Amino acid sequence: MPRVPHPAPAVAEISGAIFSRLASRIAAHKGKLYPLHVGDTWMEPFPGARMEDLRVDLHPGMHRYSETQGVPALIDAIVEKVRTQNRLPCERESVLVTAGATGALGAAIGMLAAPCEEILILAPYWPLIRGIAQAFRAVPIDVPFYDRVDSALGAVEAVRERITPRSVALYVSTPSNPTGRVLPAAWLEALAELARREGLWILSDEVYEAYVYSGEHVSIGRYAPERTLSAFSFSKTYGMAGNRTGYLTGPPAAIAQARKISTHTFYAAPTAGQLAALRALQHGDAWVNETRASYRGAGLDAAAVLGQAPPEGSCFLFWDVTRHCGDSDVFRFLEDCLEDGVVLAPGLSCGQDYAGWVRLCFTSIPPEEMAQAVRLLSKRLR
Amino acid sequence: MPRVPHPAPAVAEISGAIFSRLASRIAAHKGKLYPLHVGDTWMEPFPGARMEDLRVDLHPGMHRYSETQGVPALIDAIVEKVRTQNRLPCERESVLVTAGATGALGAAIGMLAAPCEEILILAPYWPLIRGIAQAFRAVPIDVPFYDRVDSALGAVEAVRERITPRSVALYVSTPSNPTGRVLPAAWLEALAELARREGLWILSDEVYEAYVYSGEHVSIGRYAPERTLSAFSFSKTYGMAGNRTGYLTGPPAAIAQARKISTHTFYAAPTAGQLAALRALQHGDAWVNETRASYRGAGLDAAAVLGQAPPEGSCFLFWDVTRHCGDSDVFRFLEDCLEDGVVLAPGLSCGQDYAGWVRLCFTSIPPEEMAQAVRLLSKRLR
Repeated sequence: MPRVPHPAPAVAEISGAIFSRLASRIAAHKGKLYPLHVGDTWMEPFPGARMEDLRVDLHPGMHRYSETQGVPALIDAIVEKVRTQNRLPCERESVLVTAGATGALGAAIGMLAAPCEEILILAPYWPLIRGIAQAFRAVPIDVPFYDRVDSALGAVEAVRERITPRSVALYVSTPSNPTGRVLPAAWLEALAELARREGLWILSDEVYEAYVYSGEHVSIGRYAPERTLSAFSFSKTYGMAGNRTGYLTGPPAAIAQARKISTHTFYAAPTAGQLAALRALQHGDAWVNETRASYRGAGLDAAAVLGQAPPEGSCFLFWDVTRHCGDSDVFRFLEDCLEDGVVLAPGLSCGQDYAGWVRLCFTSIPPEEMAQAVRLLSKRLR
Repeated sequence: MPRVPHPAPAVAEISGAIFSRLASRIAAHKGKLYPLHVGDTWMEPFPGARMEDLRVDLHPGMHRYSETQGVPALIDAIVEKVRTQNRLPCERESVLVTAGATGALGAAIGMLAAPCEEILILAPYWPLIRGIAQAFRAVPIDVPFYDRVDSALGAVEAVRERITPRSVALYVSTPSNPTGRVLPAAWLEALAELARREGLWILSDEVYEAYVYSGEHVSIGRYAPERTLSAFSFSKTYGMAGNRTGYLTGPPAAIAQARKISTHTFYAAPTAGQLAALRALQHGDAWVNETRASYRGAGLDAAAVLGQAPPEGSCFLFWDVTRHCGDSDVFRFLEDCLEDGVVLAPGLSCGQDYAGWVRLCFTSIPPEEMAQAVRLLSKRLR
């Protein structure tokens, strides 16, 4: 069994840095760089919710461990938010504060999947979700979905085709990273019903819930609260991705089990990040409303210039560039874009069926820089 | 396979909150509480290394994601520290900044262990290490050690007895939580040689390296750098446990694989925690020297009053209280202590052979409070 210096077989299979093929070229690039390949938000958090605002005299002991479940006052605020905004059943025991949504989904998958069991993932997907399943020795199964399903019935059929006796959970993301789609309530209800019939857990990724530009965000947990684990984050909503603070909600018995995983992978979310999150929930509404308007403008402008459908939500555009690649692959196209300083993410990081696609994050740099990057990209696409 | 609402079998086996049997009594306790059951440090970080000192105007973008490996300037400072203080080979690629030592050891075990492979753990041990192995579906194997081994040869024999064909790694902690032992260099060299002969990885937990009161801290990685993954933390050294920032060092190829696990369990350490850690490495020496003197005093005083051997390092005393328990178990003794407000940790959380022992943390409250707690405890023990 010992295999020094090699890793466990399941780990060898996890793909490393997604952008490694481009990384050296990005590092070598001279001149202005437009990092549209990351999933990040450019604005600083609002004054009052920054680290510099968290003073020891106001919060004695704030550099010590928090409770593994989370800071009690933050849990209370999350309960209120989840009940009123997500309209989900929520008690204090329904909440686990985590190291961002990555920590939330890791705790959830780590809780529910035995080795070699399968997680059905609606694709194209957030690049990290595949590796999160693999980190806990589960097997991610792509379900091509957002670019080809057009009805609740079609949604159910797409998933059902990939179900096997080893399937244990269905990962649903709305608003969707990378497609910008906001899934209709009827589809979510149909998927929840399918999960109930098939005995699946539902992993609901709602980290872009605050950034919806058309339609309405609906939490799938409303339709199957007994089997849904919902991941939320302060990262994108309040510009605090570096604070590593998010949360998982779900049935208390499942949350108690997920807490075993979070305790043994990152122990607790950072105490300061949790205090900032509490301030965000208490005082952040106006900032979010302004930020949403700004992101919406950036997204609609980018889509219009690039000839794409406007995003319904999230921070991304995702489209097929195969016809611009000629005989070469999409990496050559990405390298061409990089000559202008524009960095896009390869679609392959969002699913094996999307090798000819690219993802653009329209919130990673200020609007005026974004407009310039999109102009350069549009020239390249002509 | 689907088992909603139940967790995966391996997760059901992880013990939940270690203190659950005492938790309700702690919550119900009226009057002064002395929380000596936690592993924490009572002092605030030094001025300049607190969250309030990390201003956006000095660190624009400091609330955004850091690189998954860590903030580059912090990595440079860690390389220098590991080379000079730990005398280990260290390049930038040897370092992974993590969510504390929990994140470091999780990334290491997640990297190296396939399901059902065994991690040999020198016991009594840090309560979380067992669950970290289980979170990644590995099997923790207790190696009774710190309280009964008295030579390098004995150290090797104790481990060898527990090796099976499924053994993949050996967990060594020095200074030891919970025993306060500092392992001699000759023992570490012998254990490293054993690991090499048996093809084992070495997991070296050195989070108490700054708190040595007699003897000298030696990093076992000096003797087997090709197979040692060393976990360090800013938590205890600089009073920043809530910042969730530590690091793993080891062979670059192994660190690259471990980074896959950290990226998919907590993504990156908190950016602000990393900036605070950099300031700690740059300006924290005087604070650590003062703090060490204070902790040393608290530890020696507690040991003297309780009639125990003085701790060689770490923040703990650990001893057998069986003779004070009469016909009842140690939990009854812990409940009796709680009547005075003194909370101790049950030895069972540090290994199945230690049901009659208790752990006391002598750094969790200020010295004058600690002295009072120890007086109360000593009366109870008479």
